[in-house]
Amino acid sequence: MKTIQLNSRPVGVPKLSDFKFVTEQQVQITDGEMLLKATHISVDPYLRGRMMEGKSYIEPFELNKAITSGMIAEVTESKLAGFSKGDFVSGMLEWKEVQVSKGEGLVKIDAKKAPLSSYLGVLGMTGLTAYFGLLEIGKPKAGETVVVSGAAGAVGSIVGQIAKIMGCRVVGIAGSDEKVEQLVSEFGFDAAINYNTAGSMAEAIAEACPDGVDVYFDNVGGEISDGVMMNLNRFARISVCGAISMYNATSVPMGPRVQPFLIKNSVLMQGFIIFNYVERWGEATPQLAKWLQEGKLKSTETIVEGFENTPQAFIDLFEGKNKGKMIVEV
Amino acid sequence: MKTIQLNSRPVGVPKLSDFKFVTEQQVQITDGEMLLKATHISVDPYLRGRMMEGKSYIEPFELNKAITSGMIAEVTESKLAGFSKGDFVSGMLEWKEVQVSKGEGLVKIDAKKAPLSSYLGVLGMTGLTAYFGLLEIGKPKAGETVVVSGAAGAVGSIVGQIAKIMGCRVVGIAGSDEKVEQLVSEFGFDAAINYNTAGSMAEAIAEACPDGVDVYFDNVGGEISDGVMMNLNRFARISVCGAISMYNATSVPMGPRVQPFLIKNSVLMQGFIIFNYVERWGEATPQLAKWLQEGKLKSTETIVEGFENTPQAFIDLFEGKNKGKMIVEV
Repeated sequence: MKTIQLNSRPVGVPKLSDFKFVTEQQVQITDGEMLLKATHISVDPYLRGRMMEGKSYIEPFELNKAITSGMIAEVTESKLAGFSKGDFVSGMLEWKEVQVSKGEGLVKIDAKKAPLSSYLGVLGMTGLTAYFGLLEIGKPKAGETVVVSGAAGAVGSIVGQIAKIMGCRVVGIAGSDEKVEQLVSEFGFDAAINYNTAGSMAEAIAEACPDGVDVYFDNVGGEISDGVMMNLNRFARISVCGAISMYNATSVPMGPRVQPFLIKNSVLMQGFIIFNYVERWGEATPQLAKWLQEGKLKSTETIVEGFENTPQAFIDLFEGKNKGKMIVEV
Repeated sequence: MKTIQLNSRPVGVPKLSDFKFVTEQQVQITDGEMLLKATHISVDPYLRGRMMEGKSYIEPFELNKAITSGMIAEVTESKLAGFSKGDFVSGMLEWKEVQVSKGEGLVKIDAKKAPLSSYLGVLGMTGLTAYFGLLEIGKPKAGETVVVSGAAGAVGSIVGQIAKIMGCRVVGIAGSDEKVEQLVSEFGFDAAINYNTAGSMAEAIAEACPDGVDVYFDNVGGEISDGVMMNLNRFARISVCGAISMYNATSVPMGPRVQPFLIKNSVLMQGFIIFNYVERWGEATPQLAKWLQEGKLKSTETIVEGFENTPQAFIDLFEGKNKGKMIVEV
């Protein structure tokens, strides 16, 4: 059975050689264990942070050990109470075709209620990240203007749709005309900006947000966020979810200092990770499922076929090759 | 009667020639008015922002018009109900030796209960800024570590003392050995750092804060704040009160982008101005007065004598020539 390990800590943009495939011996399960066969692997920008050394909110990956991320797997054999052959589970698992688990941190999911992959997307950590980051930090009120960067990405596309459900004017920022078109026609955004062709971001945002920006859901950081910063209203809230524009930086990224902007308009900026809200996941998932069923929330996925393509799928995230959630179907 | 007007909008550090003295004719009061004689003028770093053009949270000063700031004045003549000759008032007034007022925004103060100047300091906007900025945004809990920049300044010295009252470990950052000594011996800070001699701020703060930083009350911005940013604990709160290091900048100040730090430790950064809490000033002032009476809060002032020295006193703020609140005694 194949496993994907971290071969070297990436410098700058990750390369295929930073990963390696290792074949491990088939393992046996004992009492209290089950055997899992991977079906879907979530590749996410935040994994880039775990590939670096140093203290962060979660332990860094170890060299020559399997990488872990959100995954869906099928139970192929079980000596563990509560799990039977044929069950599907979701949780943090290792990038292995087959692995042994004691069930820690795994939840059983219902393959009949929703497509398996959606448990990594809108019904999984992606949806929860959008839900809590927008509602708890952004606190959008009907009639306010919400700007989302990385808007065509996994989290961003859900953030924008939830903001629409809340009655806001929603403006998305993405990296191609095709994505911009999709945000407006498919996800119901009021306007969208292609940052690659917009010229001055500050001006493009001013034009798309005639009443200023009340909430900014930031997935990218960098110059895009600088442009938003120039258009904030008094008491604006910035939910700092990700900074994909900086994850591959090899020196400390510099930019305009934010303090004057925060003071001028009494702005709140709050970084978060989804694990901060773990006790409340149970209240969000049914709401997300309901919106999904009602057609108020649409999920987009970019599905890559084949376990062996997992490293490339991860690398492609940094060129924005995904629309919505990037998932590897094993 | 003399008045101090804005002669030109400062470029970089304000100069005496940015101000001008104009002699106006003595005015008469009519019914519903009173005549005020200035006794104390508060000079504050935030006034620098009002000297620039452009939209901010308060209107910019107009050229060739009197500057305004927090002031104490004595009523010398009154045709206004509720105010009598000999009363003292506090509020936003014009930099004039004598002026007419309808009483708008002014409160009567009791010269017997506390020194007049303290109504501009610990019992005035300075104290309120420290109180709400620390308690409402920083939310310090006993045992946590609170770092204050501009610690020997008007707001900073009060912030540190309130944090001590709350049971925190308090570390101040200031610009001279004399100030550092005063913070520890007079105001009860647990440690203090002279940023002019400390070398690496990040290392100096790490040393002074072995358990990391839970709350950062930021009066200065710039490289000092960069050093604090490297030492933040999970769920740290940054109360962004001022950015004196940037007020005289002639180009956009650049620095390390903050987003990665905010995400890594789920940090909150909140800018504010004291007017956000105007409905709650009434609850804070009695508490501040009580602490002052009990000796838990000490007030320091740098008193400059003479109305004509007001512009220079303001300019001196940016070289840190004040200890505590800078006040002009007219």
